[in-house]
Amino acid sequence: MNVRTSVIGLNPRGAALAKAIAAAGHDVVVWDEAGASAEPVEDVRRADSPQAAFTASLVLMCLDDYDAVQRVLGRAGPHLVSADLVNLTSGTSEQAQRAAAWVRARGGHYLDGALMAHPEHVGQPETVLVYSGSREVFERRHSSLAHLGGATYLGPAPGTAALYDVAMLNFAWATLIGFLQTAALLGTAQVQATTVAPLLTHWLSTTVTEVITDYARQVDDHRYPGDQEWLELDAPLMDHLVDAVRARGLDTALPELIQSLTARGIDAGHGKDSFASLVEILRS
Amino acid sequence: MNVRTSVIGLNPRGAALAKAIAAAGHDVVVWDEAGASAEPVEDVRRADSPQAAFTASLVLMCLDDYDAVQRVLGRAGPHLVSADLVNLTSGTSEQAQRAAAWVRARGGHYLDGALMAHPEHVGQPETVLVYSGSREVFERRHSSLAHLGGATYLGPAPGTAALYDVAMLNFAWATLIGFLQTAALLGTAQVQATTVAPLLTHWLSTTVTEVITDYARQVDDHRYPGDQEWLELDAPLMDHLVDAVRARGLDTALPELIQSLTARGIDAGHGKDSFASLVEILRS
Repeated sequence: MNVRTSVIGLNPRGAALAKAIAAAGHDVVVWDEAGASAEPVEDVRRADSPQAAFTASLVLMCLDDYDAVQRVLGRAGPHLVSADLVNLTSGTSEQAQRAAAWVRARGGHYLDGALMAHPEHVGQPETVLVYSGSREVFERRHSSLAHLGGATYLGPAPGTAALYDVAMLNFAWATLIGFLQTAALLGTAQVQATTVAPLLTHWLSTTVTEVITDYARQVDDHRYPGDQEWLELDAPLMDHLVDAVRARGLDTALPELIQSLTARGIDAGHGKDSFASLVEILRS
Repeated sequence: MNVRTSVIGLNPRGAALAKAIAAAGHDVVVWDEAGASAEPVEDVRRADSPQAAFTASLVLMCLDDYDAVQRVLGRAGPHLVSADLVNLTSGTSEQAQRAAAWVRARGGHYLDGALMAHPEHVGQPETVLVYSGSREVFERRHSSLAHLGGATYLGPAPGTAALYDVAMLNFAWATLIGFLQTAALLGTAQVQATTVAPLLTHWLSTTVTEVITDYARQVDDHRYPGDQEWLELDAPLMDHLVDAVRARGLDTALPELIQSLTARGIDAGHGKDSFASLVEILRS
């Protein structure tokens, strides 16, 4: 017996969710506000109404925005309370919290999710989806959610998955601006970015990955042993970096930010602690 | 017939270089300023003097600083001009340029190198070493250098390898401060850093690696097609990031830097261009 699932929202991500659930052999129906004018999903039936879609035991929502979420929820009808609702619509933590509160106030079951991938990667085990909100829904529907990609539960606050989304963007932007600064710096010596990109990406997936794994433990433990590297060792190298960037006529804001956070870390007594101790400065 | 190699400088990195060359079956001797008090390298003979070390056709130097480099070069004797000299001592571009100029003024052959790894990884093919300076030395000694790790030639300016070293550190620090900020942000929702580190590092070695590979081509082409993402699409997400970081009482310097570079990119006419177009802002 397969769980009956519905997917509400036929944008490219929603369609990809429906296909992945259907490909796993589950009975699935789709519904979209645009009705018959929405792009059909091959081999997947349409529900006649939002009420009909909400008769599924698992309802995945993937809409364009939270205004659409609110409109659809308002049309769910009496089955809102019986469905396990998983909302993968992109938005802020606050929007997820409000939607969760609205559903829970009516006796429903709400799990929020964030999908960090292009539609074509939905359904691959290495695709990352994170969830927060009802742990019961996450555990009850885990086998279905696993068909969409790797599923990680982040905690009971419904806003956490959306916070993860923006936190991931922060990580990506920091890494990418670091890459662009490095490319600009090497460009002053006529080194092509395509020459160094393979070295840098290899380094990301080896050494940098090991360092992040180690720093994560340090952050959780609130202990930052500086036995491999420590802020007072890093500081003169950062001064040299700022000098090198300035001497070559490039923007110094990023290396100066690293330098200044490190100086604040040393001032706060972390001179012999690892670079991971700067998390304390970011928190203060 | 094996090339006779000498390694000058028996710090942990120098000893690792000598071991890797010996393990490849090459005849190798070592020499250190500290003489008999330097830690011996198993199965590797010591040269009696720096002059004797410079009778090798390939001389690898790995000293503690450039003062030591200058002292050793001053004691090289007449064989300075016949040896292929590869200097892996850590230092600045300017120090490497000065050492190269000194050697070349005397008719010698100088290649600079930077070793981005802990000593225990020397000799593994995935260990990254970059070189700059004499292309003839790089090509003539490529098969020996390949025993130390992957060898990439960056160009004829002797300072480029040292610049690469500091540019790599910039990339690492940017990535790591991004991780710490992301961990701090998720920490406000009681998400453990060790919960998200595997997701983040997986993302680095998949999606972020693909994006960097793509951006490197864009940087080299000076063309930044915004068909996947573009600055005007990113900007409101960055505003949301800054708001989320501020609302949770964390330091906003890093997300504000990303936001402000992006605003400058849009002002400069890159609103429809990809995030990679910010390299133009970093250069201006």
